[in-house]
Amino acid sequence: MRKRTGWKRDEISAELVAGNGLIHRRALLQGGVALAGASVGIGAVGAGAEPLSIDPWILEPGTAIPPYERPSANEKKVIRTLSNPDGEPRVSGARTPLHLLNGTITPNGLHFVVARTGFPNIDPDRHRLAIHGLVRQPLAFTLEALERYPMVSRVAFIECGGNSAPFYSNQPLQGTIQALHGLVSCAEWTGVRLSTLLEEAGVDPRAKWVVAEGADAASVNRSVPIAKAMDDAIIALFQNGERIMPSNGYPMRLLLPGYEGNMSIKWLRRLKLTEAPIMSIHEMRYYTMLRPDGRAYQLFFPQEIKSFITHPSPGTTLKGHGFYEISGLAYSGNGPISKVEVSADGGKSWAEAALQAPILSKAFTRFRMPWRWEGAPAVLQSRATDEAGNVQPTRAELIADRGETKAPPPLAAFPNRHFNAITSWAINTAGETRNVYV
Amino acid sequence: MRKRTGWKRDEISAELVAGNGLIHRRALLQGGVALAGASVGIGAVGAGAEPLSIDPWILEPGTAIPPYERPSANEKKVIRTLSNPDGEPRVSGARTPLHLLNGTITPNGLHFVVARTGFPNIDPDRHRLAIHGLVRQPLAFTLEALERYPMVSRVAFIECGGNSAPFYSNQPLQGTIQALHGLVSCAEWTGVRLSTLLEEAGVDPRAKWVVAEGADAASVNRSVPIAKAMDDAIIALFQNGERIMPSNGYPMRLLLPGYEGNMSIKWLRRLKLTEAPIMSIHEMRYYTMLRPDGRAYQLFFPQEIKSFITHPSPGTTLKGHGFYEISGLAYSGNGPISKVEVSADGGKSWAEAALQAPILSKAFTRFRMPWRWEGAPAVLQSRATDEAGNVQPTRAELIADRGETKAPPPLAAFPNRHFNAITSWAINTAGETRNVYV
Repeated sequence: MRKRTGWKRDEISAELVAGNGLIHRRALLQGGVALAGASVGIGAVGAGAEPLSIDPWILEPGTAIPPYERPSANEKKVIRTLSNPDGEPRVSGARTPLHLLNGTITPNGLHFVVARTGFPNIDPDRHRLAIHGLVRQPLAFTLEALERYPMVSRVAFIECGGNSAPFYSNQPLQGTIQALHGLVSCAEWTGVRLSTLLEEAGVDPRAKWVVAEGADAASVNRSVPIAKAMDDAIIALFQNGERIMPSNGYPMRLLLPGYEGNMSIKWLRRLKLTEAPIMSIHEMRYYTMLRPDGRAYQLFFPQEIKSFITHPSPGTTLKGHGFYEISGLAYSGNGPISKVEVSADGGKSWAEAALQAPILSKAFTRFRMPWRWEGAPAVLQSRATDEAGNVQPTRAELIADRGETKAPPPLAAFPNRHFNAITSWAINTAGETRNVYV
Repeated sequence: MRKRTGWKRDEISAELVAGNGLIHRRALLQGGVALAGASVGIGAVGAGAEPLSIDPWILEPGTAIPPYERPSANEKKVIRTLSNPDGEPRVSGARTPLHLLNGTITPNGLHFVVARTGFPNIDPDRHRLAIHGLVRQPLAFTLEALERYPMVSRVAFIECGGNSAPFYSNQPLQGTIQALHGLVSCAEWTGVRLSTLLEEAGVDPRAKWVVAEGADAASVNRSVPIAKAMDDAIIALFQNGERIMPSNGYPMRLLLPGYEGNMSIKWLRRLKLTEAPIMSIHEMRYYTMLRPDGRAYQLFFPQEIKSFITHPSPGTTLKGHGFYEISGLAYSGNGPISKVEVSADGGKSWAEAALQAPILSKAFTRFRMPWRWEGAPAVLQSRATDEAGNVQPTRAELIADRGETKAPPPLAAFPNRHFNAITSWAINTAGETRNVYV
């Protein structure tokens, strides 16, 4: 029996649709049959009769099933990278290893985190959520009370406003996509619509903002437009089915689908309805964008149309020529993804990728593109479009508006926000992949 | 500020649509506004000015963010119940705590498991998947090779053929839904279509079955119709984004969406194409259903249309009168859910529940029904319909075909399979909930 280490060049005769080996996505959409049968010859595989080995784990009883399971010990490298592993009194970042995951759901153990003072050890029976300010009737909710309200579930990405900041550097910095793009994740969140609670409290017509504050030691607070609060905001109690993880806001967080992650206040303690934004440090200083002309974006909320390729990506190496699947993630804070195009020649030609159904608004959409790599240098890019017609800009276009910075390490030191431009992975003849600007 | 412990009776004036307090689902579908504003009066809430307390966790630095996160220490009870916690040489079951979860995704730590000899400690670099038998060219795949193939992601439930067996007892057994219905879970699975690999191997026209075998010490094996193998079968490598959990088949499992869980062979080692089923003990003895007339169902694959209420459910207690959301899970091995009806009076009257979008084929669909409980005894039921028009039978209808058993403990000893009838939760005047037959 012949050992398969990948598809070979001469097995593939699929329809090429763009430069450097991109194959029409129909090869994927037709159930794999077109790719394996019609488009990919199988005559070259050759015969073989090597029997399967009897591996030692087949010969012995297995390990007892645990009450709460963790990944295999062989997956020890699949963890978040920590900017503050000892919990010193400063901000902590935990980045999702997007290059080691697949699909669209981020497992709860690996959801990204940015926290100002670690996570508070909240007693859920003592915790309260208050709604006050410009309301007819201030209210305070126990967790038990919230559990009686009507709930909704939705899959939503959350992205830090500072994700992808390394691309503002004037030189392409090297790191995996965990380091470059790892402050974004996607989960199924379940909880109570904020509109349900606000209607019960009775919104004063003068109220234009809702100031949300967490129960962490930093009392992180942000101002949310009342329209967003009444639209799709959720008081989330569950993350991928189970109670929210401690560092993602246990026992409750605000979820503002599509908005800058910092606004989805974790460990949510109170919501105060006001006439004006509170001008907190998180909205007036940290999550602003100073432009080259001296003006700044403030109160800039949606995470705009974005995509990047996760497989292959910087730090990974292609092993041998032949077929590969290029895949990645696309998302938009403004609605569902309508199209992702992929280029293998640095943007000279593009082909449309297959989008994994279901395509959900303000959630990760995985795109997939069949590709034949023959060993020539390539530059892979993805360019997403959302249903509102927004298209990812090039880096040059974004930098022209926002400026760029010099490149001191560490990556986390970059000040700029909301980077959503096209990113480019160069593959050399050895199959090694690097971050480049083109 | 007044502490909210739940909605009060006199706040609710929503449209009643069936007996014993069921409210039209429109109250949920209209964004919560109808429920909170138009349908639920807020005049009775009353004023209050108690300030929020400054809880101790706000005054101290939090805990450092871990590389791989687990739920809060306060959620220690949210674990799988184990039938064989010490890993003795017999079958092990690990049941999902469905009464403590919400949404539709089962987190990876809590996915149900049935395993014959625990989980094997597989070295993913040494593991091979072979395809042989009636093929043009036998093939063996390394994990690394499989990773180069085109992938698909889909959300799918997996249910043990023996789930819900306690309901075959001639007396209603008492336990939480973890004990009664806990051998079903739902996750996003990502991997390679089996059809892609079979087309490459070249299927001999005589091949009508694919015999799948695991690399566990029990060498669990099952026969899969070739049509299913070529339809939506997947060699799954990822579970909710990360590598499959050890007891769910790490590093690879077969996934046969909608089919009896035992057939989705874990730790998948080989697939042999044959003319006839292999008549393994798992298909000729364990996963059969002996009828009262002496005949048996064998090779009965789909998990048919089913639903049950998770909130409230046996063992939980309603705390006070007023508004509650009845919610639960519906799924069908034959396609998407089209409708779930709920009764609060033991089946005398029914109303249609709201279905949480997106409604995905062969996946959990959560249904939600607004309900006003005024303290009278109630019997809650749910009845699901799928797009093919299949409707859940009553227990009496199912038992007439399949028979029932006397009731010795433990629950796990019941021999019958594929129980998918309507189940009934009785609530007494104290709000206590029990499993009943009506």
